Amino acid sequence: MTDYRSSGVDIEAGDAVKARIADLVKSTYSEQVLTRGGEFAGLVQLPDYHDALAVSIDGVGTKLKVAVLSNIHNTVGQDLVNHCVNDIAVMGCDPLCFVDYMALGKLDEQVVLQIIEGLCAGCKENGIALIGGETAQMPDMYAEGEYDLAGAIVGLVNPEKRFPKSNIAAGDRLVAVQSNGLHTNGYSLARAIVFDKNRFKVDTYNKGISCTWGEELLKIHISYLKLIQSIKGMEGVKGFAHITGGGLPGNLSRILPPNCLAVINKSQININPVYHELQSLGDISDKEMYNVFNMGVGLVVVVDSSRESYIIQNMKKYHNSYDVGYIDGSNNGSKVVINDS
Amino acid sequence: MTDYRSSGVDIEAGDAVKARIADLVKSTYSEQVLTRGGEFAGLVQLPDYHDALAVSIDGVGTKLKVAVLSNIHNTVGQDLVNHCVNDIAVMGCDPLCFVDYMALGKLDEQVVLQIIEGLCAGCKENGIALIGGETAQMPDMYAEGEYDLAGAIVGLVNPEKRFPKSNIAAGDRLVAVQSNGLHTNGYSLARAIVFDKNRFKVDTYNKGISCTWGEELLKIHISYLKLIQSIKGMEGVKGFAHITGGGLPGNLSRILPPNCLAVINKSQININPVYHELQSLGDISDKEMYNVFNMGVGLVVVVDSSRESYIIQNMKKYHNSYDVGYIDGSNNGSKVVINDS
Repeated sequence: MTDYRSSGVDIEAGDAVKARIADLVKSTYSEQVLTRGGEFAGLVQLPDYHDALAVSIDGVGTKLKVAVLSNIHNTVGQDLVNHCVNDIAVMGCDPLCFVDYMALGKLDEQVVLQIIEGLCAGCKENGIALIGGETAQMPDMYAEGEYDLAGAIVGLVNPEKRFPKSNIAAGDRLVAVQSNGLHTNGYSLARAIVFDKNRFKVDTYNKGISCTWGEELLKIHISYLKLIQSIKGMEGVKGFAHITGGGLPGNLSRILPPNCLAVINKSQININPVYHELQSLGDISDKEMYNVFNMGVGLVVVVDSSRESYIIQNMKKYHNSYDVGYIDGSNNGSKVVINDS
Repeated sequence: MTDYRSSGVDIEAGDAVKARIADLVKSTYSEQVLTRGGEFAGLVQLPDYHDALAVSIDGVGTKLKVAVLSNIHNTVGQDLVNHCVNDIAVMGCDPLCFVDYMALGKLDEQVVLQIIEGLCAGCKENGIALIGGETAQMPDMYAEGEYDLAGAIVGLVNPEKRFPKSNIAAGDRLVAVQSNGLHTNGYSLARAIVFDKNRFKVDTYNKGISCTWGEELLKIHISYLKLIQSIKGMEGVKGFAHITGGGLPGNLSRILPPNCLAVINKSQININPVYHELQSLGDISDKEMYNVFNMGVGLVVVVDSSRESYIIQNMKKYHNSYDVGYIDGSNNGSKVVINDS
């Protein structure tokens, strides 16, 4: 069985470090910092202003390896921008601007231009400006042809209108919004299954996904900004979770108040075909799949049950959306349960 | 002769790409974007607010390689924060918060903690909060024990008080502020000279620099925030240039209006001993040295000549500062001249 640890990413070690980092980091906080770590973005109140600043930083991870294998570099910038946009949008923030960091061994002008094209396409799609960047040439750190790509987004939110709302409670419903594949997470495991264990190439066609592995694994991370902006002011919309690294359990838990348990009904999930293929080709357990991948759910919205059908109706104007579970009162430490029934 | 190109960093290719990138990037700009690229930070006007947002992103470059060789990881975070702080401070901005991006092959908890310690020390020194970060584990992208580190800073500035001022003109004086070494630039060339060409180790003692090469090359990038904040409101202070990649010519040119030439008198520069050693050990031309390294000048301040002695007196409370040249009218395309006399 291939799992995420044997493919080189040790999530548990990461969590242990995170706890100790949190203490160090909090020692830098002033009263103006409105977040306490673990949120999708950091918020800082601006002096004498109605809005707080939201800042988030992320990378593309080893999806970049698929871009390099495919020699297609004009999509990873969109992945990065959309990922970051979603991270601040789920807190109710409106994105404002973006800065990128690109690190590479040897500067190939055409590759750099393609990356920037993607970044600019992503910025335009989300209505934000790319106001800065750093292109670092680091010979003997990156192999020829390889690069890393990260970026930071800045946005604004009125703290009184930030998400999640404090009134998430037992009885609320969970609405899933369809992803179009892996988005930007789980690539170390997916690459281990596809390219290492099964020795497929990026141009190997797979019937189950109706495209090549390269096409599948480079599908662009969806921006949920327009969907979120269109419903965040509606009565009964209480919380948004962007489903990234850590899957549904790892990300839904980030927006739940104490004593709330999110119950996801597995049978209701519209699982993306790529996950059936990856699970079968890799012989991966269900638990592992749900802890690493989004499984077809890119965003979860917590809504008041009485308002659910109206809200879903509006969400469907943007992306396929459907009920996938509910909030229960928690009677143990667990925050998220993926229900087999 | 070792030069920057043969050590793997091709500055000219970078510049050619930069020009084409600029066009793409500008296509994302709205009227709220106050900068046009090439500045030390990007500025965006906030709606109905007295201040604009300043954002800048940077990495530590291959100074990280020296940290890895020395197995000392609690200083590079300070390098990064101070570098970014200086980049927005030279535009007159007050820093507010920071986010970091760390990418590594295999997570070594102690190394990660040391890096975060440095980031937090840097944030505290500059009075800012570390409000977010991403630690990306990317096996098979980074060699074991290696990592990349980047970060973005956000600050505020009243656009009417931003630097450089528009009144920089012939007759103004240039004031140098001492660096304590390479800061965070020129490490590919320095490492090629020290570790490759001369086969020194990080614990090799060098008489000329009175310490080991590891100690010298890990000296922490100075934050000039307090110096800048203390004088930026003074009459006659017109511009600040943070001397990073590209040296005095590459960075002074970023703040000069058209038809202004900065003339630096080489004989006045208090050259840091490390540069004598590197130049001699590497057989590097003067031109190359000045194009790659800060040569002992971490910051240049453009001041009105009649106010220079008063301003220098105040600057010296923070860092060694002295007259190093002047602004002349430019009669050709060149923006900066390093005068041999």
